[in-house]
Amino acid sequence: VKGNSMASNFVRAGKKIVAIGRNYALHVKELGNEMPKEPFFFLKPTSSYLPSGGKLEIPKGIVAHHEVELGLVIGKMGRDIPASQAESYIAGYTEAPLALAVDMTARNLQQKVRKAGLPWSAAKGFDTFTPIGGWIPKKDIVDAHNLQLNLAINGKIKQDGNTADMIFRIPQLIEHVSSVMTLEEGDLLLTGTPDGVGPVVPGDSVSCALKDASGKELLKLEFDAVEREKGYHFVE
Amino acid sequence: VKGNSMASNFVRAGKKIVAIGRNYALHVKELGNEMPKEPFFFLKPTSSYLPSGGKLEIPKGIVAHHEVELGLVIGKMGRDIPASQAESYIAGYTEAPLALAVDMTARNLQQKVRKAGLPWSAAKGFDTFTPIGGWIPKKDIVDAHNLQLNLAINGKIKQDGNTADMIFRIPQLIEHVSSVMTLEEGDLLLTGTPDGVGPVVPGDSVSCALKDASGKELLKLEFDAVEREKGYHFVE
Ligand SMILES: [Mg+2]
Ligand SMILES: [Mg+2]
Ligand SMILES: [Mg+2]
Repeated sequence: VKGNSMASNFVRAGKKIVAIGRNYALHVKELGNEMPKEPFFFLKPTSSYLPSGGKLEIPKGIVAHHEVELGLVIGKMGRDIPASQAESYIAGYTEAPLALAVDMTARNLQQKVRKAGLPWSAAKGFDTFTPIGGWIPKKDIVDAHNLQLNLAINGKIKQDGNTADMIFRIPQLIEHVSSVMTLEEGDLLLTGTPDGVGPVVPGDSVSCALKDASGKELLKLEFDAVEREKGYHFVE
Repeated sequence: VKGNSMASNFVRAGKKIVAIGRNYALHVKELGNEMPKEPFFFLKPTSSYLPSGGKLEIPKGIVAHHEVELGLVIGKMGRDIPASQAESYIAGYTEAPLALAVDMTARNLQQKVRKAGLPWSAAKGFDTFTPIGGWIPKKDIVDAHNLQLNLAINGKIKQDGNTADMIFRIPQLIEHVSSVMTLEEGDLLLTGTPDGVGPVVPGDSVSCALKDASGKELLKLEFDAVEREKGYHFVE
């Protein structure tokens, strides 16, 4: 599969989602966490993708938080990628996409497993927990480190951040992740969320936008929340 | 892709590896952990697969532990699968494989992130950290809950357990995981390791076998360990 076709097919054909944690200082502070000394990341399954317009399913007992994030679609396979060469591995910089995504998080389950030193995989990996909206054609990409990201619930803005405020910038993220695991064409890298995270409850309508420095809207993403009928039921 | 072809291609084409933790009582005790009340799992990236005969690459500063495990290749997509229907979703029960795998674990990095409440993804996800060996044709499958699993380093047996000792059995594992995330054709489910885990160091030759109740060898898996040249360097 060539870069361009995989770039538009990553939701269906991509293999992994690598998500960076704590990459905006105000978000680190709002959750009372320690400032990271190096990037860290977790995996989300591609079975958690929810295309724009879909229904976010919130399992019973789960407090589901929104985290709006800039996503980078990997354009070619690489490992041990130096920061200086990172841009050539991002489809967004070559033929196609930056993506707009929400890293939905089961916050109460995450807090419970964190205390016990257990993995985050379930708390981050429920079906529909990675809403994702489109990609930006090469001609529209200006500076990935100067994009405005926002998220509104029922029309009220909850998150409104700028990618200029990332603690670790994109080339460093690619270098770090690829020093651990090979990145493959169609993988998605989520780059962390700005402050303002909070709950989404059944009945909410969520809308997100990505804008460039001039205020031009590049991408949008919308979904409605419902209660998941079956499946995991969280009890504290 | 039909069951049989995906079953033999899951290493190349599968999307996720879901690995169960703490599923054998003696292994829970040897690491000083609490006995689980429900199954828990983490994700490993498919970029960590190492076919039998390959080189396990141990990053500098990492204490890499072997965990030999029975793997189940998922044969068809499902979510919210009741334990009573779980068998029909496992390729091993239908057309093809049970697999033999090692869930290599960066134990010192894992201990550090567990204390900090951080994800396990890097500690479990380094390139080559999921050595994998073949699959069992349907005709050779007897009882997946009565298989002997062993692992030897330089010819000396280190792990020798029986799948009869799983705390949560296969149908419960499938029910639990699929209550969180959809399982897809070609996904691999690792079912936990028996006791006897310990370090593999550069220069070691590792060999694993899966035997049925009669002692007949069904699968084997072999690899040699080397030091990873570049990439992540762990410092305490
Ligand atoms: Mg996030
Ligand atoms: Mg994890
Ligand atoms: Mg294991």
